[in-house]
Amino acid sequence: MTHPLARRILRGDVRAAARLMRDLDDGILPAAAALRELHARAGRAHVIGITGPPGSGKSTLADALVEAARRKKLSVGVVAVDPTSPISGGAVLGDRIRMQRHAADKKVFIRSLATRGSLGGLSRAVFDTVTVLDAMGKDVIFIETAGVGQDGVKVAGAAHTVLVVMAPGMGDDIQALKAGVLEIGDIYVVNKCEREDCERLVRDLRSALGSRKSQDGWERPVLKTDAVSGRGVPEVAALIARHRQFLSRGAAWERRSQAMAKTAFMELLEAGIRERVGEKLAHEKACRRLLEDLASRRTDPYSAARRALKEMFG
Amino acid sequence: MTHPLARRILRGDVRAAARLMRDLDDGILPAAAALRELHARAGRAHVIGITGPPGSGKSTLADALVEAARRKKLSVGVVAVDPTSPISGGAVLGDRIRMQRHAADKKVFIRSLATRGSLGGLSRAVFDTVTVLDAMGKDVIFIETAGVGQDGVKVAGAAHTVLVVMAPGMGDDIQALKAGVLEIGDIYVVNKCEREDCERLVRDLRSALGSRKSQDGWERPVLKTDAVSGRGVPEVAALIARHRQFLSRGAAWERRSQAMAKTAFMELLEAGIRERVGEKLAHEKACRRLLEDLASRRTDPYSAARRALKEMFG
Repeated sequence: MTHPLARRILRGDVRAAARLMRDLDDGILPAAAALRELHARAGRAHVIGITGPPGSGKSTLADALVEAARRKKLSVGVVAVDPTSPISGGAVLGDRIRMQRHAADKKVFIRSLATRGSLGGLSRAVFDTVTVLDAMGKDVIFIETAGVGQDGVKVAGAAHTVLVVMAPGMGDDIQALKAGVLEIGDIYVVNKCEREDCERLVRDLRSALGSRKSQDGWERPVLKTDAVSGRGVPEVAALIARHRQFLSRGAAWERRSQAMAKTAFMELLEAGIRERVGEKLAHEKACRRLLEDLASRRTDPYSAARRALKEMFG
Repeated sequence: MTHPLARRILRGDVRAAARLMRDLDDGILPAAAALRELHARAGRAHVIGITGPPGSGKSTLADALVEAARRKKLSVGVVAVDPTSPISGGAVLGDRIRMQRHAADKKVFIRSLATRGSLGGLSRAVFDTVTVLDAMGKDVIFIETAGVGQDGVKVAGAAHTVLVVMAPGMGDDIQALKAGVLEIGDIYVVNKCEREDCERLVRDLRSALGSRKSQDGWERPVLKTDAVSGRGVPEVAALIARHRQFLSRGAAWERRSQAMAKTAFMELLEAGIRERVGEKLAHEKACRRLLEDLASRRTDPYSAARRALKEMFG
């Protein structure tokens, strides 16, 4: 153990964790080395992904689940992923502000991430943050993400337990069911169940889930909540704990942890490749000329990509 | 011009286009060569991205816009992007079925794409399909995609004109506004305007758009539609045409086309790199050992990614 921030983080030093995350954002190299040290000491936390379409009340539910975990004296980490703002490059805060009431609680560490640009890089930051929170000794870590399309699928590769949150009255519910959510969830939550059309969505969801068992053999439940009033939240918290027990009984916990490590590796690898390719395109003469030829239509994207690949891999 | 399918496609042969797309799916190499030939002859079509949260009625609006374009005797291509189904690997059809009423119309070519796995590859297929449709001589090409997070941003890099579709009553509307949509749209459509809370969303959207000009200096309008009854659709169609005129008057059309070519290049490059990295991981001894070490915890994702990058780039 040589990295001073890593040492402090392992003792649970919140300021050191915040500092390391800033260093990672700034691309400071020793920070990456610290992650390797921290990873060796991580692997104990229960990582819970919360995903679902916008407007389903994910943030409110996450907030209520943080409170439920705190009442059980569990220490909590939260990674909140804000959708991309491609031009401003910054995260737009909204209802996530509500989380701030936990800010005074030293056992809760909240980190908001913005996805920068269209070329990924989000997932790498998610994995880095989870590693830091895990090494800090957090008992549970929530990853909250706007889950439609690829972003939603990615969270499934980063968590032991995946909560899919939906809400009635969001247009054709079939639209949401289409969005690849039926395969990724361990626990399904129909939120905003003060609305009358809640029962129909619960029924549709149950029938769409079919046999309802996950690949591990876990019977996937559909729960009703009203996160604003807190109704149903204790049941969700209990099921999250039960899913952890379920995973730990067999080889499933180990299997999921291995899958998470592989996903992290692939994300890190892709991020690294992207970085190096970006450098080549910016600095190497042959690559720079490619981009110029593309702009002036002397070449087309297909030929340009082929030439660039030849340049890189021979 | 040597590729037989390319030659037939340039004459507008629908079967040849369908065949080439199948060949591309199957990874048949000459198909990629055909794309280079086709790209040289493309560049005339007006590419329109349609994005927005699930349940906003994008498919219905796209369908109505196809009809409007056909009434003006324009030939039409549609690329419909289905959300990921990571396990089944297949596209789940739903309301997109409605599009089938255009199937008998020879001037409309519809192609549904499914995203396979979590590691991208979607965008490459979108660009390929647009190239084929463009070379076939389609006047307008619609790309319809579930636009939240990164997927939504990507469509902005692939189109001349971006329509953002929203609907009232989808939970906190601020949620949708957060989703990075404020920067990417050229035309905003509030659909399902038979609902009473439509006006509020229109107002919120107008105020959130602020000065409402795009980077090109286009004043970004907010329109109301009810795509099911067709109300407001002619106005949207007229504005799409007006945006094309606007782009063509100055250098904006050329600028957007260049940006689209660069986005396509980057996507193709990333897809190519991913492919080669996948091959290395599967077949090269050193890389295979890395994955084994990862599974057995002899190494961590950070060290493994560093080693793999060293293996590739030295």
